[in-house]
Amino acid sequence: MSRVGISKFIFLPMAEPDLGEMERGNLNEAVIDNQIGVGRFIGDFERAWAEYNKMLYGVACNSGTSALHLAIKASGAKKILMPNLTMAGTVWGAHYEGLDIDYMESSPDVPGNKCEITDHDAVVFVHLYGRKAYPDGYVAELKARFPKLIVIDDMAEAHGIMPEGDIACYSFYGNKIITTGEGGMCLTNNTKLADEMRSLANMYFDKERSMIHPKVGYNYRMTNLQAAIGLAQVERIDFILEKRRKIEGWYDKYLPEGVKLPKRDVLWFYDIKVPNAKKAQYYLKSQGCDSRRFFYPMSLQPWANGMKDTTGEKWYQHGLLLPTYNNMTEGDVKWVAELITHTISGYKRPVVI
Amino acid sequence: MSRVGISKFIFLPMAEPDLGEMERGNLNEAVIDNQIGVGRFIGDFERAWAEYNKMLYGVACNSGTSALHLAIKASGAKKILMPNLTMAGTVWGAHYEGLDIDYMESSPDVPGNKCEITDHDAVVFVHLYGRKAYPDGYVAELKARFPKLIVIDDMAEAHGIMPEGDIACYSFYGNKIITTGEGGMCLTNNTKLADEMRSLANMYFDKERSMIHPKVGYNYRMTNLQAAIGLAQVERIDFILEKRRKIEGWYDKYLPEGVKLPKRDVLWFYDIKVPNAKKAQYYLKSQGCDSRRFFYPMSLQPWANGMKDTTGEKWYQHGLLLPTYNNMTEGDVKWVAELITHTISGYKRPVVI
Repeated sequence: MSRVGISKFIFLPMAEPDLGEMERGNLNEAVIDNQIGVGRFIGDFERAWAEYNKMLYGVACNSGTSALHLAIKASGAKKILMPNLTMAGTVWGAHYEGLDIDYMESSPDVPGNKCEITDHDAVVFVHLYGRKAYPDGYVAELKARFPKLIVIDDMAEAHGIMPEGDIACYSFYGNKIITTGEGGMCLTNNTKLADEMRSLANMYFDKERSMIHPKVGYNYRMTNLQAAIGLAQVERIDFILEKRRKIEGWYDKYLPEGVKLPKRDVLWFYDIKVPNAKKAQYYLKSQGCDSRRFFYPMSLQPWANGMKDTTGEKWYQHGLLLPTYNNMTEGDVKWVAELITHTISGYKRPVVI
Repeated sequence: MSRVGISKFIFLPMAEPDLGEMERGNLNEAVIDNQIGVGRFIGDFERAWAEYNKMLYGVACNSGTSALHLAIKASGAKKILMPNLTMAGTVWGAHYEGLDIDYMESSPDVPGNKCEITDHDAVVFVHLYGRKAYPDGYVAELKARFPKLIVIDDMAEAHGIMPEGDIACYSFYGNKIITTGEGGMCLTNNTKLADEMRSLANMYFDKERSMIHPKVGYNYRMTNLQAAIGLAQVERIDFILEKRRKIEGWYDKYLPEGVKLPKRDVLWFYDIKVPNAKKAQYYLKSQGCDSRRFFYPMSLQPWANGMKDTTGEKWYQHGLLLPTYNNMTEGDVKWVAELITHTISGYKRPVVI
């Protein structure tokens, strides 16, 4: 189990941002302008990210959780259908608002979600671990059947996939494909939803900033420093996605067949299935390599609504995310793959979920 | 109405951050460390700010609104007494939680608040416009009478005043005495409250980060970039407060007597009373000078509970905040004071509130 090739780290991390000259240059400009909170990069970042994703409006905010909350609140939904296998931040906005929540099974290896709309006002799709949550054109069909349904895309783990819903929500947390450290954004083509989300995120100030707030709002503002980095990341995203595609290729090459999952549309963290994710994680940690379990399904969380989802529960037992970031070398990936090979060596049968 | 002496601005702003070499140096270090989200400056900033305010624990977060929400939620209060004349961010946490809210009159020129505790679990004092909200020792007396009462201090406008309650909440928004652009912090001596606020602010991850969240949480994290600036600001706060003390002296010197309010403990924005705040603001704007109305009392907000507070309403009609920031020159202040003198020239009687 040689660590040759791992030059930089004593402990191989899950993720690290890839900051280039452009990010540093923008940051310097923001400081020189004396604009560390409100500032000109915010609008630029919003426009650049909207344009990249072929949407009209961007509303920057301080996290992916905030973005989802803004979208859910602006949708006006009373009853909502949400994914079960996801990060809790996806669903918390609906909890804050006290909505009536139904969960649907979601899985990283099946294209499309089991989406059964009845009397729901909104639905959230999570594009899990870099795979598009629905087939192309699916949302248009759904909207044709349910014209009033608001479709929200959770794109936190899928920067680069083109969203098809009414509102696309992004996280730019430090481990995301492009990052602002902490940060988020909502994209939409709907002027009314964009205005509402922008007002909610900025304390619902009235136009004259007279200290009258027509509604209860939030301080979900992104800073100019974050946006300065974000703008540069958007300009470099094609390069970043290409680099990650290469890392995916290395994992494909060195990992044993039994652990592999279907190809991703974009690479966030490389995800695998192993006989025992908890044991594998401990072993990797003991060898100096970080990893993450799959998300703990919403149905199992202590504040859950009692839904039963055996598929989601199995994914939690078997799913593992491996270190993935731009500065990884082929040697790093090969070493992680060797550790994984070692963890499954005692098991005879492949994992079936 | 000469603008001689105003060298930098076409429009004289309300506020601008005072960033020095130390802030820039810390920011550079954060970028060199590749720590733009999570990072080492956060703990350093928390410890430095706690120490400066003679408290044990600091929990950094992304805004003053978040800080208040964390404090209110961690207090476990069901019924809360809140200030009426304040920024809406003070009270929104209680709205998010659906608490039973009573409001008390609060005023910038009277030391002490009209605080009538009955069956409240918590009370929030706002240290409005740089003046301490209660006499020294008042909180200890209150706690002796109501041992279970949680006392929360809103210190957003009063950096440098020593808080006496259970939890002190700070905003470090761009216009505050010390700033991180956007940002906030809770200080407390109570280990349990500190742990609870830290968990709530960081998505209530369990210790092993196993993706199980024992409670519904929030992403209220501060970034390392913000903390890098904040740490430097704490180290420079005595210098910053001294500079602002000088600006207060200039306003005292050049403003007409009738508009002046009692001395402040620390200077945030210099506050005055004028016959008609709305007209004064329009006039100042027409001359190229920014200003802010006093807060619109909570009792008058569209989402208010119907309480009547004529004092708060009067303050909104007559109160005005004048530009205040470290890089102001005596010439800037003199010019603003001349504009104010002009606005009250038609009025014969002083304003009585």
